[in-house]
Amino acid sequence: MTGKKAAEARRMSIGAQRNPASQEAILQAAEEILVEGGLGSFSIEAVARRAHAGKPTIYRWWPTRTILLLDVYHRQKFVDIAPDTGAIETDIFQLLSDLLEFWNTGHGGAVFRSVIAEAQTDPAASKALAAYMAERYQQGGEIFRRAKARDEVADWVVPELAMEIITSFVWKRLLTDRLEIAPEQLRLVVRHLVHGLKAQ
Amino acid sequence: MTGKKAAEARRMSIGAQRNPASQEAILQAAEEILVEGGLGSFSIEAVARRAHAGKPTIYRWWPTRTILLLDVYHRQKFVDIAPDTGAIETDIFQLLSDLLEFWNTGHGGAVFRSVIAEAQTDPAASKALAAYMAERYQQGGEIFRRAKARDEVADWVVPELAMEIITSFVWKRLLTDRLEIAPEQLRLVVRHLVHGLKAQ
Repeated sequence: MTGKKAAEARRMSIGAQRNPASQEAILQAAEEILVEGGLGSFSIEAVARRAHAGKPTIYRWWPTRTILLLDVYHRQKFVDIAPDTGAIETDIFQLLSDLLEFWNTGHGGAVFRSVIAEAQTDPAASKALAAYMAERYQQGGEIFRRAKARDEVADWVVPELAMEIITSFVWKRLLTDRLEIAPEQLRLVVRHLVHGLKAQ
Repeated sequence: MTGKKAAEARRMSIGAQRNPASQEAILQAAEEILVEGGLGSFSIEAVARRAHAGKPTIYRWWPTRTILLLDVYHRQKFVDIAPDTGAIETDIFQLLSDLLEFWNTGHGGAVFRSVIAEAQTDPAASKALAAYMAERYQQGGEIFRRAKARDEVADWVVPELAMEIITSFVWKRLLTDRLEIAPEQLRLVVRHLVHGLKAQ
């Protein structure tokens, strides 16, 4: 079970006590704290204070700080992870372009960078991030499953692995603060990924 | 600081600068602190104390914490960034395999994860990391320059960009704590990168 799913399941199992307004208030408070003060000022305690919620309530829904961070991130994210433009090259361009834009405007990039930073010092955070990513590769792999059905993509391509590979480049750009990529440059990156490096 | 003390500090740092053992002692102390206590216990102050060095000396050589972290990392790194096996596919396999092994054994992975985490909260750190990476792409781009000279790789491939793309995947594996990759699996990743995704 993924971290996110586990959190959802936990939330569902206490359905009777669940108050959606409270949950929303907690996520909102968490986002504000993160945006205002960064990861350094982010704690369950600070979120509880700002949301006027009890710490046990927060821990019941989000067993770890990172699962809460990931929920804050996912809540803001409106990127279609498996765009369908009809061709693999434009699907990938669309996805990477949307991710870069989402990270570069608003707070999505800052929150995700916080999650990744957190995962470098806390093994539980690392596990939660890996689980979140596995779920995303599964969903986004749809791009490659569709392209295989069209015979556009090679048989041996593994959809989830291909998804992991193509999104690695923008991850690195996020983590080295180089999100501004001109469309021609991004098209060139996609060309490397889709056509490979070999001379024909 | 009084004029006299400042002059003393300068003399001390100048003296130390002529003594390579001191620089080595500082790097050694920095590495030990990082390995023992992680990024949380890492500070110029702690390094100075452990190395019996003055803080001004350290700051003269390493103007920021991250530059010191990057030096600690680079000092441990014995990976050939541009292996020459005679074919692009085996060059890339060799490089990614060596990076994964280096990160997965010893402290290389932990130190580099610390550097990347640091870069997420400190813009100066982010800049230092980006500069370090740019240098590495330049050096590692040799793989693609050689392959282009052999007509093995397409004309439009940009060596530095290709280097950035192919190393992104292992970065992500490092950051999500999934460095254990079977050789067949890694060969499959390299196949995606070298041959692209398109059906022939």
